[in-house]
Amino acid sequence: MSDEISAPVVGMVGAGQLARMTAQAAIGLGVEFRVLADTQEDSAAQICTRTVIGDYRSAGDLLKFAAGCDVVTFDHEHVPGEHLADLERVAEVRPGGAALRFAQDKLAMRDRLSAMGVLAELGVRCPRYWAVSSPADVTAGWPIVLKATSGGYDGKGVWICQTEEAAAEVISHGIGLLAEEYIPFDRELAVLVARSPKGQGGSYPVVQTVQRDGICREVISPAPGLDPEVSLRAQRLGLALAAELGVTGLLAIELFQVGGELIINELAMRPHNCGHWTIDGAVTSQFEQHLRAVLDLPLGSTTSTARAAVMVNVLGGDDQDLYSRFVHVMAADPGVRVHLYGKRVRPGRKVGHVTVTGTDVEQLRDRAWRAANYLSLGTEEPGEEPVEEASQ
Amino acid sequence: MSDEISAPVVGMVGAGQLARMTAQAAIGLGVEFRVLADTQEDSAAQICTRTVIGDYRSAGDLLKFAAGCDVVTFDHEHVPGEHLADLERVAEVRPGGAALRFAQDKLAMRDRLSAMGVLAELGVRCPRYWAVSSPADVTAGWPIVLKATSGGYDGKGVWICQTEEAAAEVISHGIGLLAEEYIPFDRELAVLVARSPKGQGGSYPVVQTVQRDGICREVISPAPGLDPEVSLRAQRLGLALAAELGVTGLLAIELFQVGGELIINELAMRPHNCGHWTIDGAVTSQFEQHLRAVLDLPLGSTTSTARAAVMVNVLGGDDQDLYSRFVHVMAADPGVRVHLYGKRVRPGRKVGHVTVTGTDVEQLRDRAWRAANYLSLGTEEPGEEPVEEASQ
Repeated sequence: MSDEISAPVVGMVGAGQLARMTAQAAIGLGVEFRVLADTQEDSAAQICTRTVIGDYRSAGDLLKFAAGCDVVTFDHEHVPGEHLADLERVAEVRPGGAALRFAQDKLAMRDRLSAMGVLAELGVRCPRYWAVSSPADVTAGWPIVLKATSGGYDGKGVWICQTEEAAAEVISHGIGLLAEEYIPFDRELAVLVARSPKGQGGSYPVVQTVQRDGICREVISPAPGLDPEVSLRAQRLGLALAAELGVTGLLAIELFQVGGELIINELAMRPHNCGHWTIDGAVTSQFEQHLRAVLDLPLGSTTSTARAAVMVNVLGGDDQDLYSRFVHVMAADPGVRVHLYGKRVRPGRKVGHVTVTGTDVEQLRDRAWRAANYLSLGTEEPGEEPVEEASQ
Repeated sequence: MSDEISAPVVGMVGAGQLARMTAQAAIGLGVEFRVLADTQEDSAAQICTRTVIGDYRSAGDLLKFAAGCDVVTFDHEHVPGEHLADLERVAEVRPGGAALRFAQDKLAMRDRLSAMGVLAELGVRCPRYWAVSSPADVTAGWPIVLKATSGGYDGKGVWICQTEEAAAEVISHGIGLLAEEYIPFDRELAVLVARSPKGQGGSYPVVQTVQRDGICREVISPAPGLDPEVSLRAQRLGLALAAELGVTGLLAIELFQVGGELIINELAMRPHNCGHWTIDGAVTSQFEQHLRAVLDLPLGSTTSTARAAVMVNVLGGDDQDLYSRFVHVMAADPGVRVHLYGKRVRPGRKVGHVTVTGTDVEQLRDRAWRAANYLSLGTEEPGEEPVEEASQ
């Protein structure tokens, strides 16, 4: 019989909206949750009592932060690899540096994935890719996709080049680049899985994602009309990659669907925009699931609580006053779930998301887009154009 | 076009688990939430960045707290009535003192309710009651229920007396008392409604509650086998009382069911144990709903997201180490939702609750009781005895 409360301390490096929603999930678990924030105004720092201010690029700040934690995890992939090794000497780091490398370095990820037998077994492939250091490396096959090997997010660090001149301009900045074949996809899918150090895995339903200018705008769960066989392959892929890469915590895999073919676009090892719908639409939210996984607790049920869920991101418009527009949205649709991130509004910045759950996907999409557009713009635009079902 | 973020500041007096779960809901709304706590270790103070330490019985502490808030609301009913009037001069107080009086003073509540025509219209009544000041006031009709007119909670302040001697012993303590007829009820029900200052009202489904030793142990939503006509009367009662008493925020009404008859037991004007299931089982949780109501925002949907939900409170056992028992519960039932309050374990103290949603009520009850018993005791006892359906 213990006299002490033994709940462990989880520290998350980074204090954006992912950390904010993880902090919210930690409350119910009774787990002490800390964030390493740039400033007290960061999205998560506003609402997390155990906020430490520091620089995630500083080994000293990271080590000081980790010293008070049992487990360290991440809100983003930008902690330098050499600091991860230092961290691992003082705390459990989940995901560990050996896994996280493949979310940080796209060239390393491509090399590692291409060598995996499981991809061929599942009929999944990566785009053709190669390292780029000079304009001579990209001369044909336009359009070509250039990607910064590290540091990108929300479309930053990705350039679709139509000409040699455009490619040369990107290459002239001297950052590490790889080139990839451009995939004319039918649609984008994502699979989100969790894996614990003990090796337990769990997959959420495969979702369809809609990006605009490289930013995730909409997620539909489950992906409408997806062939169950393709869905199963995507979930198997998620679980297999999490195991082969030794991921602990969440792994999100962004996929292109071309007919029945699945092509791997990107990996992330943290809560991910493709899983925000789980707060309102699944038994266990991705944020609680990430905590359970990094704490090596048994995973929660990934079952959906409704037939379908649609999540739309709220991007900042011109007007700071998000709150007053909230009233209209609440009155217009009492069933819409709004999540605000406490961030200052800047045009195009993700400042929140809305989720609607139910049965009729087109109705859900219409409701979610109306709410998100009103929050962004103060006008109730019609829903986005219909999502085309992939040809099977 | 505004340049300022205009989200208002809500302050809650008291920092128990109700404030903790309200703080959790405030995160998504992007509303600044403060609590007035006794100590930094209080359940809500642990996780709320805007915690003010102070005494809710001190007018000075209350006024200092209220000065930074747009709206003040409550986690309990124990703020002295004279201080409420002071508070109302510096902030919006919701519910206001004129309404809150009827949750604070059971004699005033009985007098007020008994004078309402709507009770007779709805075929609802109060128990027979009378003020008590000496043993001569209770001489016949055993058992008789004695209640402290104010200050009770979780069964404290309620005595079921079988004899004159037992009653005399209670009366000898000199506290304000009323006597009520003992109601041999079929079962207990509760209805939870929200009302905003604008007058919008919304009712959650009527639930069955099971109390042990005056403490709520289990809530089943909706109340199994409840005649739809009785359910409708209970919801109408909730909305009518909220309007007649001028309640802003939540109003919970605990009811005795005797056949088709409804008898009013208690009122509370705050988030209530009978509504904890809404976090996992309704579109809008009672905690978000309370915030929306006190902020005069449009109310959220009160629709259930599953056919049925069962909530069981986790009471403290002998062992502090709740967390290590958590692992077993998570592994045994990945679908159970556990909510811990961060409170030190003391025998019989409410330290958390579990909720299970689905279709088969008896299965849900079995799962919820297993999880709660294991968290309390470290042994997996079978579910509680079956709940009898009320005779209709």
